[in-house]
Amino acid sequence: MLIGRPLRTSEMSQEEITPVEGLSALSLDALTSVAYGPEAIVVVLALAGAKSLHLILPITVAIVVLLAILVFSYRQVIDAYPGGGGAYAVSRANLGASASLVAGAALIVDYTLTVSVSIAAGVGALTSAFPSLSPGTVPICLAILAVITLLNLRGLGASARAFLLPTLLFIVGLLAIIVVGLFHPLGLHEAQPGRSLLTTTRGLQVVSVLLILKAFSAGCSALTGVEAIANGVPLFRQPRAKRAKRTEMMLGFILGTMLLGLAVLARRWHVGPRSNETILSQIMGMAVGRHWAYYVVSLTITVVLALAANTSFGGLPILASLLARDNYLPHLFGLRGDRQVFNNGIWVLAVLSGALLVAVGGNTNEMIPLFAIGVFTGFTLSQTGLVVHWWRTRPERWRYRAVVNGGGAVVTALATLVFLISKFEQGAWIVVITVPLFVLLFLRIRAYYQRAGVELGIGSLPQKPVAKQTLVIVPVSNISELTRFAISEALSLSAEVIAVSVATEQADGEPGYSEELQREWSQWNPGPPLEILHTEFSSIVDPIVAFIDQERSKADRQIVVLIPMVIPSRLRYRFLHNQIDLVLSAALRKRADVVVARVQMPLEVPLR
Amino acid sequence: MLIGRPLRTSEMSQEEITPVEGLSALSLDALTSVAYGPEAIVVVLALAGAKSLHLILPITVAIVVLLAILVFSYRQVIDAYPGGGGAYAVSRANLGASASLVAGAALIVDYTLTVSVSIAAGVGALTSAFPSLSPGTVPICLAILAVITLLNLRGLGASARAFLLPTLLFIVGLLAIIVVGLFHPLGLHEAQPGRSLLTTTRGLQVVSVLLILKAFSAGCSALTGVEAIANGVPLFRQPRAKRAKRTEMMLGFILGTMLLGLAVLARRWHVGPRSNETILSQIMGMAVGRHWAYYVVSLTITVVLALAANTSFGGLPILASLLARDNYLPHLFGLRGDRQVFNNGIWVLAVLSGALLVAVGGNTNEMIPLFAIGVFTGFTLSQTGLVVHWWRTRPERWRYRAVVNGGGAVVTALATLVFLISKFEQGAWIVVITVPLFVLLFLRIRAYYQRAGVELGIGSLPQKPVAKQTLVIVPVSNISELTRFAISEALSLSAEVIAVSVATEQADGEPGYSEELQREWSQWNPGPPLEILHTEFSSIVDPIVAFIDQERSKADRQIVVLIPMVIPSRLRYRFLHNQIDLVLSAALRKRADVVVARVQMPLEVPLR
Repeated sequence: MLIGRPLRTSEMSQEEITPVEGLSALSLDALTSVAYGPEAIVVVLALAGAKSLHLILPITVAIVVLLAILVFSYRQVIDAYPGGGGAYAVSRANLGASASLVAGAALIVDYTLTVSVSIAAGVGALTSAFPSLSPGTVPICLAILAVITLLNLRGLGASARAFLLPTLLFIVGLLAIIVVGLFHPLGLHEAQPGRSLLTTTRGLQVVSVLLILKAFSAGCSALTGVEAIANGVPLFRQPRAKRAKRTEMMLGFILGTMLLGLAVLARRWHVGPRSNETILSQIMGMAVGRHWAYYVVSLTITVVLALAANTSFGGLPILASLLARDNYLPHLFGLRGDRQVFNNGIWVLAVLSGALLVAVGGNTNEMIPLFAIGVFTGFTLSQTGLVVHWWRTRPERWRYRAVVNGGGAVVTALATLVFLISKFEQGAWIVVITVPLFVLLFLRIRAYYQRAGVELGIGSLPQKPVAKQTLVIVPVSNISELTRFAISEALSLSAEVIAVSVATEQADGEPGYSEELQREWSQWNPGPPLEILHTEFSSIVDPIVAFIDQERSKADRQIVVLIPMVIPSRLRYRFLHNQIDLVLSAALRKRADVVVARVQMPLEVPLR
Repeated sequence: MLIGRPLRTSEMSQEEITPVEGLSALSLDALTSVAYGPEAIVVVLALAGAKSLHLILPITVAIVVLLAILVFSYRQVIDAYPGGGGAYAVSRANLGASASLVAGAALIVDYTLTVSVSIAAGVGALTSAFPSLSPGTVPICLAILAVITLLNLRGLGASARAFLLPTLLFIVGLLAIIVVGLFHPLGLHEAQPGRSLLTTTRGLQVVSVLLILKAFSAGCSALTGVEAIANGVPLFRQPRAKRAKRTEMMLGFILGTMLLGLAVLARRWHVGPRSNETILSQIMGMAVGRHWAYYVVSLTITVVLALAANTSFGGLPILASLLARDNYLPHLFGLRGDRQVFNNGIWVLAVLSGALLVAVGGNTNEMIPLFAIGVFTGFTLSQTGLVVHWWRTRPERWRYRAVVNGGGAVVTALATLVFLISKFEQGAWIVVITVPLFVLLFLRIRAYYQRAGVELGIGSLPQKPVAKQTLVIVPVSNISELTRFAISEALSLSAEVIAVSVATEQADGEPGYSEELQREWSQWNPGPPLEILHTEFSSIVDPIVAFIDQERSKADRQIVVLIPMVIPSRLRYRFLHNQIDLVLSAALRKRADVVVARVQMPLEVPLR
């Protein structure tokens, strides 16, 4: 009911998007990183005391330079792979299977973290504006995750037009606040003096190269999501590549402007980390005061961050289906649900990111050390792949293109190394362990499918099927309409039918019941004989299994066991009927030559 | 593995017990009530202040008089029903179905409460001796419950001989402590003065008749379990009735002595309720000091209380199986497990009493108001039934017997009324609601079985079964050994076989797969035709169901759906194979004329 009616294939991908819509559908992940990128820099710098906070400006400049390189690189990716695909597809085509598996594993880690970080940052924006909501951080995170999961199971994840209004509100609103802050701050003197900054005033840590590198790598989390447009080129209206490149350019320009503007304001106003208010919230509060504009933009940030988490729900299930098609993941990730979405991938992503949110208590900064490594591994692999691509295909101006992508690959590889070294102990080691484990899992799954395919003889025509004699065995407990129903179906399958009934020797007697059943059976004379199985044990399943095994050993026959069952009109009445079918099917599961089937008679018991 | 190997019927009831063993197997429930009976009296008296605590002695004398009446009455029950049976059987034979259902419902409530009260009191004895264990009360209760449940699932519940040592240790130890306390207390002056009594020193409530009645009825919880010997007569060695009557007499004598002794000591030493030490523990501490004897007997009390809970595990499952045989409970309560025990009844009792323990937080006194009503209802009904029995059968001295049982019935009926009135608000109303609800449930279940029996035509011979033409439908996805396996089995069932395959129109193409499958099928030429089902939706189950419905409407045939399935050698590999069988069986569940069966091919994939 919550998911909606099934959709036809033809109802898919009606929408093709324009560049501005592309910003809302594919760039929210990147644009919203302004909510945690500057924050991550300031948190690192604050470790060296309040006087080092001014370093945010040069570090942000370096990050924006890297952003420019990435934007130019991904415009090349769009030209080379107008079919979309992402790091997995690019490195699979150019760098071979191993590199593509590393890219696939890194992307899975990345998508999961994007969901968790975006939602946590969105809730962070909310609790900064309304501090009384702070204790409910984790439940609010999980509720937002549940709504996003449901929307994606309905297949509404990619409805770009619905996202347009909040995206534009967010871009225009935040840029306006930055401009006001730069030229005529309205709320600067309203900053609450009561709250103190969380900086170490003793300056325990000197401003070292290592600290700057750490701050830089933490801030690089602001660049995550830059690759999404290149992954989604097929969504654009024709001419696709041109529109996608224009969107990538717009994204780079807007994101760079926001980052630089926020850095200037943070430096000018000596903004430092506070216990329950984000950096972005502080800057906004100082720029326009805690009036309607502040609250509107805060709420918008929460909404667009939730929508940014949505981007991953578009990405991971498609990646998982590609991996499943290549036999690296279970095939069930390649099945679409009734709403034409890969629902198994959606569920796995929801569970993984939900678990992560609970584990870190909804705290964005706990996840930042894990975040950028996966993304930047993907950056490096896809750009290296492109260099190989240009080398192989040698189109017009291929040398220039190879140099741009090669430069991007070197810079992002260096950045990845910096993350790894500087953040290894704070959590980066988790990614270093997780990615190879995923690769190992992919390889083992593929090896299983290969061996299973050989065993199943897929690819070669098997011998012709051969029919055998069939014996049908029907367990019965009395003579009733159900027995007649079951024996009728059994006689339809084969002329050879045996009914069996188990006589348990009760300690307290009940003698003669089986004799009476045998007598009534002769009187009824339905055709098949009735075999009474005597047992000293209490299980009534074991004697039936033993009888079946005995019949199996007699001749090379096909044996079918038909279990008569009543299907009552109401579910709660099922407890009133014996459930022998479950026990018997389980007991016969390992006997491949025995076919077990239920004969289900509906029972409409009239109400009094 | 925990439950043990299956047992033969002939391995049951090897043990027949002697009177002393009868004490340990059937009387622990009654004997151990010394751990909560006096406690319940003191808690009520303390409400009227410390000066009313001396009333414990007259109240206990009244209870011991009632005990004597009950013991004499139950010796008559043993004579009249040497086959055992309990209140349900006695009232069913003499008072009719309605009375027996009330007795059955009261017994279910009683058995559940006995388990919870015994375990809670046992843990109370443990935490009194070792106060540091107090915070773990509920987990310890549940752990003991789990062990008892497991032992009973193994069928070891009735092993009386194992219980003999702790029972004798308990009887001898506690009697010895009482004697020492009466004549030469060793530890009286060691009582810790730091702990204050939980009495209302202001004497808010005057000592009224109501208070005395309340204390009396609370103390009657010490009489629960007196009926157990009469229920279990068949367990005794011949001459059964004589041995059982001797055991009942011993029980009455020992229990009466203990109750009176404890009451004298409690009165002499002005023992009152304390927050984390039981009355019994206080008396024992004052009698012999907190030395080895105190600790040994405390631990013994915990053990025998746990064993007393075990008595109910013998009773409730047998009662449930009797109710199931009479169609008042689902028939599955009448099935014995591999260890010859009624395991469904054991599970239900474990779950009910576990839930009760959690609900009251392992506090014995919370359950006392609920406890005795069920037991005393059973007392009243079985003795009234006996009066009718004597009247009908008129054996030697029947008038004398009828008078004894009639007297017992009147006294216990009065006591039941006192409980109901005096404890109605403290929880007795729960029993007043629960018993009729159980009776209603019994009646509705029996009505369903009667109507279902009519519908199923049980009791009259149905028409002869008729065979029909059979069409076998096999869903396939490729041509492999599995396909050959399934088509072979299908051809064994009928000459009419159709293979079906679903072609989903993927948005991204994959055209021609179904055409290629059709071409390969012609090349293979296995016999049955292959039908390709086209769909615009993503579900592959719906087109198969639609095809089946179409074939059903064509002719009156028996339709069998054979679903090919791989059974991998390891469970974890099952995630790697599609689970279409589950979805398809569920979709076809409502179609009674379609038989759904799995064709299971074992797949031994060699490890590299």
